[in-house]
Amino acid sequence: MADPRFFQKSEPLSLSAICEIAGVACEAADVIIEDVAPLDTATSKELSFFDNKKYKEQLTQTKAGAVFVREGDLTLVPTGTHALVTKSPYKAYALTAQAFYKSEFENKPTEVAPSAIIAKTASIGDKASIAANVVIEDDVEIGENVFIGANTVIGKGVVLGDNVVIGENATLSHCMIDDKTRIYPGCRIGQDGFGFSMDASGFAKVPQLGRVLIGKNCEIGANTAIDRGAGPDTIIGDGCWLDNLVQIGHNVQMGQNCVIVSQTGIAGSTKIGNFVVMGGQVGIAGHLNIGDGVQIGAKSGVMTDIPAGQVHMGAPSMPKMDFMKQVAMLRKIVNKKND
Amino acid sequence: MADPRFFQKSEPLSLSAICEIAGVACEAADVIIEDVAPLDTATSKELSFFDNKKYKEQLTQTKAGAVFVREGDLTLVPTGTHALVTKSPYKAYALTAQAFYKSEFENKPTEVAPSAIIAKTASIGDKASIAANVVIEDDVEIGENVFIGANTVIGKGVVLGDNVVIGENATLSHCMIDDKTRIYPGCRIGQDGFGFSMDASGFAKVPQLGRVLIGKNCEIGANTAIDRGAGPDTIIGDGCWLDNLVQIGHNVQMGQNCVIVSQTGIAGSTKIGNFVVMGGQVGIAGHLNIGDGVQIGAKSGVMTDIPAGQVHMGAPSMPKMDFMKQVAMLRKIVNKKND
Amino acid sequence: MADPRFFQKSEPLSLSAICEIAGVACEAADVIIEDVAPLDTATSKELSFFDNKKYKEQLTQTKAGAVFVREGDLTLVPTGTHALVTKSPYKAYALTAQAFYKSEFENKPTEVAPSAIIAKTASIGDKASIAANVVIEDDVEIGENVFIGANTVIGKGVVLGDNVVIGENATLSHCMIDDKTRIYPGCRIGQDGFGFSMDASGFAKVPQLGRVLIGKNCEIGANTAIDRGAGPDTIIGDGCWLDNLVQIGHNVQMGQNCVIVSQTGIAGSTKIGNFVVMGGQVGIAGHLNIGDGVQIGAKSGVMTDIPAGQVHMGAPSMPKMDFMKQVAMLRKIVNKKND
Repeated sequence: MADPRFFQKSEPLSLSAICEIAGVACEAADVIIEDVAPLDTATSKELSFFDNKKYKEQLTQTKAGAVFVREGDLTLVPTGTHALVTKSPYKAYALTAQAFYKSEFENKPTEVAPSAIIAKTASIGDKASIAANVVIEDDVEIGENVFIGANTVIGKGVVLGDNVVIGENATLSHCMIDDKTRIYPGCRIGQDGFGFSMDASGFAKVPQLGRVLIGKNCEIGANTAIDRGAGPDTIIGDGCWLDNLVQIGHNVQMGQNCVIVSQTGIAGSTKIGNFVVMGGQVGIAGHLNIGDGVQIGAKSGVMTDIPAGQVHMGAPSMPKMDFMKQVAMLRKIVNKKND
Repeated sequence: MADPRFFQKSEPLSLSAICEIAGVACEAADVIIEDVAPLDTATSKELSFFDNKKYKEQLTQTKAGAVFVREGDLTLVPTGTHALVTKSPYKAYALTAQAFYKSEFENKPTEVAPSAIIAKTASIGDKASIAANVVIEDDVEIGENVFIGANTVIGKGVVLGDNVVIGENATLSHCMIDDKTRIYPGCRIGQDGFGFSMDASGFAKVPQLGRVLIGKNCEIGANTAIDRGAGPDTIIGDGCWLDNLVQIGHNVQMGQNCVIVSQTGIAGSTKIGNFVVMGGQVGIAGHLNIGDGVQIGAKSGVMTDIPAGQVHMGAPSMPKMDFMKQVAMLRKIVNKKND
Repeated sequence: MADPRFFQKSEPLSLSAICEIAGVACEAADVIIEDVAPLDTATSKELSFFDNKKYKEQLTQTKAGAVFVREGDLTLVPTGTHALVTKSPYKAYALTAQAFYKSEFENKPTEVAPSAIIAKTASIGDKASIAANVVIEDDVEIGENVFIGANTVIGKGVVLGDNVVIGENATLSHCMIDDKTRIYPGCRIGQDGFGFSMDASGFAKVPQLGRVLIGKNCEIGANTAIDRGAGPDTIIGDGCWLDNLVQIGHNVQMGQNCVIVSQTGIAGSTKIGNFVVMGGQVGIAGHLNIGDGVQIGAKSGVMTDIPAGQVHMGAPSMPKMDFMKQVAMLRKIVNKKND
């Protein structure tokens, strides 16, 4: 069970109610479920899921009252556990867990802390929750039902849509953030891009005159940095998930529903399509085009455009097949030398 | 045009005034320019530049009133656009853009926010702009015309020169920062280096007794961390540009005018010369010497000293030529296997 | 000598007192030592150490009054310098330096800043030092003799043990931190892990219902991010040292006394044993098992389990021997092509 210090659980649910929530067909079993839990610790009152073959043994030994599984894994479910068949066990679990545990931001009191420092020219929508020591500068516009965590700074002119969540100790400037997007603690959004000209007489700073535009339903992880554009804007499309400690350079344009894992960096002016997935610690050079649906393995270094749908790995990156061959070949040569 | 929510534009300029600002020779054309803009969106009242061959087509189709170009690219400039010839189109653009858009820090009101908490023993020069909730501890010395962003903490004894800019939510301790340097939001400067001795009985912390010294005219990017020295100081020379999320270990000594791109890490006690350039996500081992003018490709892992002037790539890094050969050779072997 | 702006030195010590502190045998020399210093700047009143062969020349020319050395290096110590023989010169130096320079946190005044905002339901132990603008939310429990730096946010329900130090501008939520652990400025601990299910209809957020548990005597570097568990907890064992800008994914379980160098990232649900050492910029994939005593070279990319005691390098990582052979072989082939 989730620690009640930190999490507030809702009322128990019948299995049929859960099936409706999760969009899963099931006989209206007269079973009451009180919580979600991992396979190895779940009790007969708890629901779990099986999605990763690594945990097969845990499934065969689970004591869970019910479990979401794919049809092909049905035979692994022990007697005494209700199997709920779905093509997306993890998604069904996600929806169920959401029902048991409401987002902490839904429970926040609707209040503006007395210590928050809000410019007179800022406008703030209804039902805002603005925590202690937040600083909101001139001409900021904030929608309804927004949460802003303690000690965060919202710079002059920033626009936040409805239901936006901004974590603690974050800094936003020169940006516009659309509805339902969540910015995690410590993010830096909208600062100057890395723009200068360099010649024998030294550096000249190039004024960074663009903004950062972030779409709806995005998540931007802790301590991630997104520089504003140099002239064009830096754009993150709807539904993108960026993990912690990611770097987005100026003028990057990212499409919708991309997933960018931790510590990845995307250099300036690169264009990323829709549904692009990058593993952790990927680096993408500047001024490139990465097509829709491209997948890039962790730690890859991308130095060329990648057409839509390709899977790339390696540094410099190449199609996955080539990378796999290269790795296998190197292993073979080294082993031969060992003989 | 830059969004007036965020940017304040100066008055229009004649082309001849611009040429003077940019240090470019031109016939005193009686043309008024109102703004700078990218090639593809510039109008006849706007000025642009051409520096990267990737955007050649945009140059040939530009509607810009004037454009900075190199002599060799003159023939690509369409009729109706004034070509301003220079060896450094990007620098000329930078100087022009600076003329149209003053730094936001020049426009800041000179005031100390009532919520700033400033120790009595701190001394602060004239024309300081100190934002809300800034904390300035004992014995801090701050020069003239300094800007400190909201919620930043300046630890005991820190020294800031004239015209220094410190972004929001930053933490400075045990450091001295020279004139005209800019520290971005979320930087951590001066904390303990990663110093401990380790034996079978566990770890013993090594007191970190040095400082961080940062020269003039530097830029230190968002969420970058610079540890203070263990005994010697950690030193960043004049005119260095560090990007976001960079890590500088204790005792690192960096010369002047270096460029360090995002997510690069330099381990303890390594010495870096002048005019060194590192791409993104480079890693440099500790106790190395990197000579003047060295260039290191993105994602390289440097495990040896590098003599002045060399270009290195790869992990472990090697001279660029060797790296290129290695990449080409691997590609060839893999392709042959495919036949 | 350490800059007195930042560091406060204790009284001089006799060599015999130092030997006792450092656990080193020595004739009770009637010598007074006033400070510690590096080999190349130490005077006859100062003590240094020799641990890294790179600095051999500095040892032979040192003017130090005394120096910790291994027995095998005795002949390198110049006349006039007392040689103090130990198997761990660096540790002996660490203990001596600790005697001369007390931790800055020991000298902090025991007071709660008037500007700190502390929920009525929070409980705070004796001798707390809570700096300006700290925000402490409901139900937080804090032990004795704790230091919390300015502008830090301690979220609802967080538990801190005795003698914990939390740096400035940090954000803690959903976590429990044991005695004597130190969290550096800008850390983000306890935020949601990167948990979502993804199918053709888009993303569904998976509620993150675990905590972060950090053991005793840990150090967590500046701007490091540790996500809370998804259901299980994220666990960092006693005595672990994490450097700056490290990323720890949800459900990671790390044993005791591990060392994780800067910019390393460990993906979700991976289990790390005791005494594991990772260089900088290492990436570890999710759901892996890394055994006790494993050492992983800087920049490695680990995609498989690693048995206890192995040394791995490369991306994808492999046993060190194989990596060395591969590097040597590639070099040879490239050089042959050059002939």
